[in-house]
Amino acid sequence: MRPITSSIGLSRRVLLSTLAMLPMLSASLRPAQAQSDPLPSWNDGATKNAITTFVSRVTTQGGPDFVPVDQRIATFDNDGTLWIEQPMYVQLAFVLDRVKALAPLNPGWKTKQPFKAVLAGDMKALAASGEKGLMQLLAVTHSGMTSEEFAKIVSDWLAVARHPRFQRPYTELVYQPMLELLAYLRANGFKTFIVSGGGIEFMRPWTEKIYGIPPEQVMGSSIKTRFEMRDGRPTLFRLPEINFIDDKVGKPVGINQHIGRRPIAAFGNSDGDLEMLQYTTLSGGPRFGLIVHHTDAEREYAYDRKSQFGKLDKALDAAADNKWTVVDMKNDWKRVFPGA
Amino acid sequence: MRPITSSIGLSRRVLLSTLAMLPMLSASLRPAQAQSDPLPSWNDGATKNAITTFVSRVTTQGGPDFVPVDQRIATFDNDGTLWIEQPMYVQLAFVLDRVKALAPLNPGWKTKQPFKAVLAGDMKALAASGEKGLMQLLAVTHSGMTSEEFAKIVSDWLAVARHPRFQRPYTELVYQPMLELLAYLRANGFKTFIVSGGGIEFMRPWTEKIYGIPPEQVMGSSIKTRFEMRDGRPTLFRLPEINFIDDKVGKPVGINQHIGRRPIAAFGNSDGDLEMLQYTTLSGGPRFGLIVHHTDAEREYAYDRKSQFGKLDKALDAAADNKWTVVDMKNDWKRVFPGA
Repeated sequence: MRPITSSIGLSRRVLLSTLAMLPMLSASLRPAQAQSDPLPSWNDGATKNAITTFVSRVTTQGGPDFVPVDQRIATFDNDGTLWIEQPMYVQLAFVLDRVKALAPLNPGWKTKQPFKAVLAGDMKALAASGEKGLMQLLAVTHSGMTSEEFAKIVSDWLAVARHPRFQRPYTELVYQPMLELLAYLRANGFKTFIVSGGGIEFMRPWTEKIYGIPPEQVMGSSIKTRFEMRDGRPTLFRLPEINFIDDKVGKPVGINQHIGRRPIAAFGNSDGDLEMLQYTTLSGGPRFGLIVHHTDAEREYAYDRKSQFGKLDKALDAAADNKWTVVDMKNDWKRVFPGA
Repeated sequence: MRPITSSIGLSRRVLLSTLAMLPMLSASLRPAQAQSDPLPSWNDGATKNAITTFVSRVTTQGGPDFVPVDQRIATFDNDGTLWIEQPMYVQLAFVLDRVKALAPLNPGWKTKQPFKAVLAGDMKALAASGEKGLMQLLAVTHSGMTSEEFAKIVSDWLAVARHPRFQRPYTELVYQPMLELLAYLRANGFKTFIVSGGGIEFMRPWTEKIYGIPPEQVMGSSIKTRFEMRDGRPTLFRLPEINFIDDKVGKPVGINQHIGRRPIAAFGNSDGDLEMLQYTTLSGGPRFGLIVHHTDAEREYAYDRKSQFGKLDKALDAAADNKWTVVDMKNDWKRVFPGA
């Protein structure tokens, strides 16, 4: 095959003169990068040092641990790793609000579980309805519409919903140090992906704007969809049936399905991320695993081994065994949320 | 949130001076692009004109049909659209060769269908074994190993297998005009994806080298995998169970699952691509649909409505109805294969 440069019509002269300018560009960028801190919301110390040392190792051309750009894949959990997951997963707050919004159209819900529990704010009865109850709530809130309609429902909700404690939109309760980390990795040639147990179509309407991660680099749990023509327009209709659970052993399976390459860095915060971190780090070559440990009850929340949401138990032990970097939120982060 | 530029540590001065250089760069590229032909293996005419007109419309800043770069998604079928699919799908040739390679370890196959038919080269008996027979062949050739082991088996086979008529490696029997089209679209800001009915892990070992399409931009049919630790190393073990069929209505479903955006251009060659083309083109805004019609028995093959592989019937009628561009291979392409 002919080289791509010739088939897209670049003359050799133009190509060479363009390439000749690149060192100028990168030289003019380099001093600024070296002078200013790419991770200003991280306190100096072992955690920050572990991150920058790894990035330096894999990006040092000619060094023993150099990794070519196309293999610099980094995967991030979402709930509790990139944004808040207490006092409950944001998607669960969406489900509860959505049931309330739909209740006037469904008068029978007032007397029928699990809907009755949601409408009465009875979390104990809701918990008692178990997985079957949750599936019923997911069915009425997440299926029965097209993918595009669902994206609008999510966006409309995020625009008005507020976190019960911080009274800010959920999309502002993302972790500023992690936003800097995403940008820092991308500036160093990494491709950043989300690998979340949460719903893929619940995240995609906003991840590009908030995290700089486009929809095609977002993985999550999903329900099945059906292709159908509606008024001459082809749509995907959301069905009340689970397609894939992107959690625990599902994370490496989903990563292989979606990315087709083993990441060299993975970032999580709970036992749901254990297998992703194993898959990423236990396979030779320079690898990086990081766990966000929520230790800051004052600025955010403090929880780990016994938490209902984002339980961090086995993965905390595995972090010690495997020398993964553990972020002590209270001491490692200067700020938690943007603008705070 | 702070703008990304400040969080990665670019000073305003450096940023502005860098931006100031960009018009110079693009100005120096523009004359060369205008002078030389980005699609040299396409004959001048209506087909080529339709392609370049569409690309010009969606990339003209300020024009009525301008599409921002992040929405320039183009999806390509593989078999019969990017590479050869006659006298049988390449993956089927792999299956047959692989059964022969494994036969010495499985002496019972000599007397047991569908293996007996494969070993005897009896295509009629093989066809008679139906879908059940094919699933048995897929199970023994595509499962029972890790994803990494399977990738090596595929690569090793492609290195030695030769097409029965052209006596060239299959990876050389890709369509040169389509390689130019992929490069031309990418040079115009498009992100190119493969959406194939073929096996996703059969394609990923070679698509980056041959098409410039990285693994994370390849979709295909898949079998289930299981995460497991083997000798302390986390692996994905391939199971004899279908996960997803990425064909017909499965193509838009897979595109939504994987990309999460509706493409603005789609390229196919058979009825398996019909729904992908509908999903892409019948939804408002500037859209482009193209079908490769195999009309060249001399340089490649001529087939459409009655072909066993790559049947093009309903989609050919739909192309006329929907004004999709139809490539007449014989008349529209100067060359078919690279270096030919």
